[in-house]
Amino acid sequence: MGRIRFLPLKKEIENGGGRNILQLATEAGVYIQSICGGKKKCGKCKVIIEEIEQSLAPPSDFEQDILGPGHIDKGYRLACCTVLTGGAVIRIPEESQARRQVILTSGTSYAYPAKLQPVLDQYLVEVQTPTIQSVRADLERLYMSIEDDFGLKHLTIDPIALRKLPFSLRSYEKGLVATIWDKQEIIDLQKEAQGPLMGMAFDIGTTTVVGYLMDLLAGKRLSVKSAMNPQIPFGDDVITRISFCQEDPHGQKKLRSAIVQCLNTLILEASQEAGIDPCQIMELTVVGNTAMHHLLLGLDPKYLAISPFPPVMTNAMDLKARDLNIRIGPSANVHLLPLKAGFVGSDAIACVLASRMHLSKTETLLVDLGTNGEILLGNRNRMVCCSTAAGPAFEGGHISWGMRAASGAIEKVDIDPETLDVQMKTIHESGPVGICGSGLISAVAEMIRAGIILHRGNFNDKITSDRLREGKQGFEFVLSWAEENPTAHDIVITQKDVSELQMAKAAIQAGATLLKEVLTRDPQRVFLAGAGGNFIDPADACTIGLFPTSTNTDIIGIGNGAGQGACLALLDKRKRRDAQRIAEKMEYIELSASDKFQELFVSSMFFPTAVDFSDIF
Amino acid sequence: MGRIRFLPLKKEIENGGGRNILQLATEAGVYIQSICGGKKKCGKCKVIIEEIEQSLAPPSDFEQDILGPGHIDKGYRLACCTVLTGGAVIRIPEESQARRQVILTSGTSYAYPAKLQPVLDQYLVEVQTPTIQSVRADLERLYMSIEDDFGLKHLTIDPIALRKLPFSLRSYEKGLVATIWDKQEIIDLQKEAQGPLMGMAFDIGTTTVVGYLMDLLAGKRLSVKSAMNPQIPFGDDVITRISFCQEDPHGQKKLRSAIVQCLNTLILEASQEAGIDPCQIMELTVVGNTAMHHLLLGLDPKYLAISPFPPVMTNAMDLKARDLNIRIGPSANVHLLPLKAGFVGSDAIACVLASRMHLSKTETLLVDLGTNGEILLGNRNRMVCCSTAAGPAFEGGHISWGMRAASGAIEKVDIDPETLDVQMKTIHESGPVGICGSGLISAVAEMIRAGIILHRGNFNDKITSDRLREGKQGFEFVLSWAEENPTAHDIVITQKDVSELQMAKAAIQAGATLLKEVLTRDPQRVFLAGAGGNFIDPADACTIGLFPTSTNTDIIGIGNGAGQGACLALLDKRKRRDAQRIAEKMEYIELSASDKFQELFVSSMFFPTAVDFSDIF
Repeated sequence: MGRIRFLPLKKEIENGGGRNILQLATEAGVYIQSICGGKKKCGKCKVIIEEIEQSLAPPSDFEQDILGPGHIDKGYRLACCTVLTGGAVIRIPEESQARRQVILTSGTSYAYPAKLQPVLDQYLVEVQTPTIQSVRADLERLYMSIEDDFGLKHLTIDPIALRKLPFSLRSYEKGLVATIWDKQEIIDLQKEAQGPLMGMAFDIGTTTVVGYLMDLLAGKRLSVKSAMNPQIPFGDDVITRISFCQEDPHGQKKLRSAIVQCLNTLILEASQEAGIDPCQIMELTVVGNTAMHHLLLGLDPKYLAISPFPPVMTNAMDLKARDLNIRIGPSANVHLLPLKAGFVGSDAIACVLASRMHLSKTETLLVDLGTNGEILLGNRNRMVCCSTAAGPAFEGGHISWGMRAASGAIEKVDIDPETLDVQMKTIHESGPVGICGSGLISAVAEMIRAGIILHRGNFNDKITSDRLREGKQGFEFVLSWAEENPTAHDIVITQKDVSELQMAKAAIQAGATLLKEVLTRDPQRVFLAGAGGNFIDPADACTIGLFPTSTNTDIIGIGNGAGQGACLALLDKRKRRDAQRIAEKMEYIELSASDKFQELFVSSMFFPTAVDFSDIF
Repeated sequence: MGRIRFLPLKKEIENGGGRNILQLATEAGVYIQSICGGKKKCGKCKVIIEEIEQSLAPPSDFEQDILGPGHIDKGYRLACCTVLTGGAVIRIPEESQARRQVILTSGTSYAYPAKLQPVLDQYLVEVQTPTIQSVRADLERLYMSIEDDFGLKHLTIDPIALRKLPFSLRSYEKGLVATIWDKQEIIDLQKEAQGPLMGMAFDIGTTTVVGYLMDLLAGKRLSVKSAMNPQIPFGDDVITRISFCQEDPHGQKKLRSAIVQCLNTLILEASQEAGIDPCQIMELTVVGNTAMHHLLLGLDPKYLAISPFPPVMTNAMDLKARDLNIRIGPSANVHLLPLKAGFVGSDAIACVLASRMHLSKTETLLVDLGTNGEILLGNRNRMVCCSTAAGPAFEGGHISWGMRAASGAIEKVDIDPETLDVQMKTIHESGPVGICGSGLISAVAEMIRAGIILHRGNFNDKITSDRLREGKQGFEFVLSWAEENPTAHDIVITQKDVSELQMAKAAIQAGATLLKEVLTRDPQRVFLAGAGGNFIDPADACTIGLFPTSTNTDIIGIGNGAGQGACLALLDKRKRRDAQRIAEKMEYIELSASDKFQELFVSSMFFPTAVDFSDIF
């Protein structure tokens, strides 16, 4: 009798006596790794006995084998082998609590679920040898052992994995490790301790593709690799690529090959960096916008471009990686997260997952700024969403000096309201060569504050300054003189650039306003997804009126929410169910059918008057 | 009110009034083809009204379209469109009752089930067009329509079939036809009336491979193609091929490629003969001995040759044809029938299916004569089985003039007991060039009857005849003189040939005797499976003592029972369940573990004394 205390979680339990540490921990809700199910076979359930009220039986031969004298001297024991009769303080070392409390190594502060439920489990199985009196087939004996030891019934096996069975069964002395997908399909058989189980999460954007290689059981990120989407030469944006599929008879196939090859390259690169074999990767998750999803699956995206823009499918799907020519473990599955609509893809659903707005009471506006701006509003009770054609301004497109967020792009601008002198910050601190989306927002916001740009977006011709001048296409403002930058040209913001931004921000503002009116509730915070989101200054967003929110509403960049959501779904199957539920429950508003949206769009073209004091002069 | 009589089945039903012929037929248990579920879309439910008590409404526009004036004049109507208020006599023409009462076009008299339940069904589906007010994805709309119209829930779709969806949905005016596997997976989408649904059944023997191309819904056999098993160059029998896999590092792969290529060739040949595209083949069934099964699946057969001879798996398995590189419909499945043991394969289970012994009260002995003789005994209550190494004698192996059952093989011998003159029948009536298995049995039986061979198998040296002489290896008997046959040599039966046959028949007789003792019941009939079975004279079998049966027990050749069983399982999914149940329930006796079998084997070497009157002389 006595109290058992588990560290580092500080959970306690009364010891009824006579049970081993593994059993006590399970009862206390403390997770200790064990793949043999407490059968004294796997040696994974190492614990450290820090204090003890009783005298312990000496370590068994098996414990001595696994732990070695160095560990035993430090108080290490195996939880399944050690029976406690009295009170004790037990520490679960990190290697035995590997699935716990893992935090993304970078990005945001959203934690992985405290205890993961990966879609793959590994079981150490001991299968009986057939005898001449009782000959049963290898597979049926394997099924029987798994059912007896772990209670899993009605299993199937992938036919490629099955080929490893006769050898595995007879060659692994300590039993073989079966990797089981979703408690239903055996997808691999291997030797005990053949290295960790890997998975990879992909976020396929129109412009960039990012792959995250993860240790599935430890929940650790091992490598991140990204590449430009190799479909770009066939079309910069989604609509151009869809047209390409119509014009070129092999268009769809070319786009599919390109993206599959890209995934395979990222898989190889990530595997090399982590020092693993790509065949150890046994599960993939994929998110992307609907067109990227369709092109990967080989589905004709044609109708995404024709009203009412129906996708071919929206539900989540699992299929064999080999059926997509993706070269990972030969029996591995690919999980494609669910879509919502033709222009609200699984990347948006994944952002919701990562942001946890579907679990929160707080009314949240989630915006992914891009050529298509996906806008989602709501909380755990109700969520609405829409997609607006914002145009390429947020990505630097159609802007005189616009560029992607790469080295030398101006991303932050500061204008002295007195002198109109310009200070700026560029990516990688290189000499300025152009301006990216967040830089454009920053520049225009500063120009509004300095009175250079007025309520309607027109330049204030009452201002006299060298920097404000008549250019080829009307007024322009010089951000950087030719002699100050490597381009040897003046870098300017033109009246037309401002108009482009007005169109883009109007699309977002009008969409968000419409959602607000549908929900009849105001957003209490704004999450900005996408790489750009982290670099947009909330004050700037407010100044240009990007969102229909009051000035003191929090605007928080959540980084690559889509990629993060894909990682979450890779590590925890409950997140997949969540994603499916989000996609089903969320209401989609088709803006092209809405007269109200047209009205809102027109009125959202202006910059907010609240800060437009310059207009009064 | 009145009585409705359905021809040709002569089923009757009282007409409660106001229902259409399709509904009345369903109630009467009469099957009329209809893939639209009675929604007046498919035009498949043609019937002929032969007598009628009422006046009928004139044919609708749809009926006139489908039937044309020629048919309408002959009394044709569509069952779903025609409401009957009074009595009538309705004939279901053959095209509308296609799944009924189909008999194998050749082979035996075992009928297909009266009403087939194929594993594939086709449904004519009308899917709603999405509107801007209610945009749902193509796939979800398809699922919804199928659920609403046919009650099928929780469907999945093969990812390759999914690629056809956007086009199919928008191009087929009369709705699209979904092919659904086992009421759970959509595996094809096509235009209405795009030709029949095809399947193919394969029997993979160690020596020959036979493929049957079938129209699945009509239950008709369209083409049969066979080939020598291309694995023969790697080893004549199973054991040699298993050894080859051990000796050659690529051995298993070579054998797998060879058989897959053979199946693909037979698929092409059968398709060409039937004038179809191999892609119309949407389901395959495969039976074979355990080694052939394993080699096709890519499973190492090594342990089949090592006691206790465990197979890698025994249960039935469904997998994608593409995962085996079999080139049929891209989403088609392959069903491998269940095995019983290392040397009782799915061919034996298929023989049981075809013979229907598992449904009969009659105690049946089923024997497949081959290098491995599979022996099964029992009835619907209990069945036992074993496998014996009979050696190659039944296939003409290890016999001086032995050959396979090909042109010119002696298959039947007649010896005049007075003159010892020999009459013989050869395959294709060609000049004799050798002797096949059934010919050997016939020759030895006749030699026993003529007193040339005695009880113990030795030649009777008291007989004087030119034909009985001392050869290089002891006594031999001349069947055909050099000048009578194209070989220009005397064709003889030697003492050693007789010993080989004694070994082979002893294996069968001892195995069957052991099963008889396990069951403690006598066989009431014998089914002989395999190509040779049809050509063995029951009297000859009796004379040499092939089976432990009394002389008046029926011995019936059932032809290629394995191939027939594969066809049954292709056409009717209930037969697959039957096969699985047979495999699970049947008891397997391992002879290599049985001392009793050794004893029986030795005593079975002799020929029966009952006919051995010559011994007395």
